[in-house]
Amino acid sequence: MRLAEGIEWAVHCLLVLSWLPPDAAIPAEKLAAFHGVPRPYLAKALQALARAGIVASATGRGGGYRLTRPAGEVTLLEVVRAIDGDEPLFRCTEIRQRAPIPGAVRPNQPPCAIAAAMQRAEAAWRAELARTTIADLDLKTRQHTPARVLQAGRRWIEEAAARRRDG
Amino acid sequence: MRLAEGIEWAVHCLLVLSWLPPDAAIPAEKLAAFHGVPRPYLAKALQALARAGIVASATGRGGGYRLTRPAGEVTLLEVVRAIDGDEPLFRCTEIRQRAPIPGAVRPNQPPCAIAAAMQRAEAAWRAELARTTIADLDLKTRQHTPARVLQAGRRWIEEAAARRRDG
Repeated sequence: MRLAEGIEWAVHCLLVLSWLPPDAAIPAEKLAAFHGVPRPYLAKALQALARAGIVASATGRGGGYRLTRPAGEVTLLEVVRAIDGDEPLFRCTEIRQRAPIPGAVRPNQPPCAIAAAMQRAEAAWRAELARTTIADLDLKTRQHTPARVLQAGRRWIEEAAARRRDG
Repeated sequence: MRLAEGIEWAVHCLLVLSWLPPDAAIPAEKLAAFHGVPRPYLAKALQALARAGIVASATGRGGGYRLTRPAGEVTLLEVVRAIDGDEPLFRCTEIRQRAPIPGAVRPNQPPCAIAAAMQRAEAAWRAELARTTIADLDLKTRQHTPARVLQAGRRWIEEAAARRRDG
């Protein structure tokens, strides 16, 4: 089992978008260039973020992607759900009901103990993902990155950004 | 993303094996019949459990699968690892190093904050899986199952079991 590769790309894009001033946006091709990932695949991830209401996109002059809310209000859990969907990791197919014994199929059975245990583990995973926001990740990243690299990154992003009031 | 279906099958099989007396084993075809799952696919899951040292198999008269240790010493985490492997759910491909800015590639960088956060969530998931044993699941299952169904299940399993000292 493996989470979608698009999750890594999406979170990195959200970090970049969190550096933009409110009136700016970044086109998908610039985000693809900055992260060295194929644009068509990244576009799918960005569209999934847009469907989830995490980013908004505008076309034309000054078009591109931007966050719809502060980075401190976007959690990793939302990003994982946007990209990989909301299906549980473990799917119970109720094979306990297939046992060749009378009474195996009963109405209103409590949840299978196995499914319940797997769901508890997933709840712990999701709770931890929900505790981390894009702003938290940005803070950690800044702490671990030399100032000159941060400055160069910010410059690249500012040059790549399209201003809505440009023209 | 979805965990392998074989995990559900494997845990159910381990529950059944935990009901066997120490000198007994159950052939794969009986486990497949009890759970209503295709034998070739179940065989793969059972072989994975054997490779992980959770069950042992013997061929010939009295052959079949049995637990190698008490059910209270087999955790859900071990079963998930045996069936689905030990790869992390999230794989960091270090796309931060692809940024077209000087200094993006640095030796001895601390782990990417995104990867670290995803790993924390996985650690919470695994910790919860490690807290539950096959014996815990058996206890819960017994509590939720009417006595007559448990008795019928036990009878079916005893008839299906092969005794090593049979002949």
